[in-house]
Amino acid sequence: LKKWRLVGSEKVYTSDYVTIFNDKLLLGDNSCIDYERVELRDFCSVLPLIEPQKIVMIKIYRYPADCTSWEIPSGFIEHDESAHEAAVRELKEETGYKSEKLTDWGSFSPWTRSIQRAHLFLAEKLVKGRPKRDNTEQIEVKLITVEEAKKMLRAGKVTHAPTIVALQKLLLNEK
Amino acid sequence: LKKWRLVGSEKVYTSDYVTIFNDKLLLGDNSCIDYERVELRDFCSVLPLIEPQKIVMIKIYRYPADCTSWEIPSGFIEHDESAHEAAVRELKEETGYKSEKLTDWGSFSPWTRSIQRAHLFLAEKLVKGRPKRDNTEQIEVKLITVEEAKKMLRAGKVTHAPTIVALQKLLLNEK
Repeated sequence: LKKWRLVGSEKVYTSDYVTIFNDKLLLGDNSCIDYERVELRDFCSVLPLIEPQKIVMIKIYRYPADCTSWEIPSGFIEHDESAHEAAVRELKEETGYKSEKLTDWGSFSPWTRSIQRAHLFLAEKLVKGRPKRDNTEQIEVKLITVEEAKKMLRAGKVTHAPTIVALQKLLLNEK
Repeated sequence: LKKWRLVGSEKVYTSDYVTIFNDKLLLGDNSCIDYERVELRDFCSVLPLIEPQKIVMIKIYRYPADCTSWEIPSGFIEHDESAHEAAVRELKEETGYKSEKLTDWGSFSPWTRSIQRAHLFLAEKLVKGRPKRDNTEQIEVKLITVEEAKKMLRAGKVTHAPTIVALQKLLLNEK
């Protein structure tokens, strides 16, 4: 394996969510390429599980596709917090629930041109409280059974990547 | 549910992979917000399965994280081709295999600020041929067993989102 060598980098766009770099790279065969690196902010997703066998899901309005989406609570990790802290906060804000047992389920890369990570958590021992949403979060909270989640996945009714990954993992753990 | 109304849009960045819009939106409560919509190109990922129980995986160098990643063949869908055609092409280019049975496994959204879709396919009845890679694709092809895939997932050794979704789906189908 020959690693690529960074010989120059220019920031061509930046905002609160996205920063884009045009990197000049020297490849193993000595050719030089431009590579567009897209840095998106890390986020976390939390699968809240109420024993026995109920999942707390949200139905949220997603503007780009102009439709509602079945998801588990998710949100960006703020600059001053850990993934774990963000998971606790997002779960509380979006659903009202507080978890007394949060398990780290690892992380994955949603997009290969970025080092962005999506951190997953399983939230158990839930205590109900009041959500705290802002005006851009149109959210409906629903409890669904694991069996219903399985059917929704099979029917392609879940399209949110971290939600699919987390629900599949839950179903596989039950095997 | 109150949909948001687009009252203005400005393209603030564009390239071959990413286009960013600053949309002005009128919410249901009559407040107005700026929303950064990030359009990333659609891509496809193909899970190649050799009966009985062998998966064709690739070990590919990913520059942003500067490491190798275990993935299934994936690539952007070109403007003049369907997701199905792109899947056939990427499988051939990256691994050399041609599939005589490609099954549509649906699609998902890797990123909620975009309508980008990741299309998944299962490729069976594989015929071996020669790969056709360009100099930015440092790829090693490996056959692994379904059991090995399960262990890699559990150990967090797979981080590529479409690969995780496809492998977990395969394991769930086997239940």
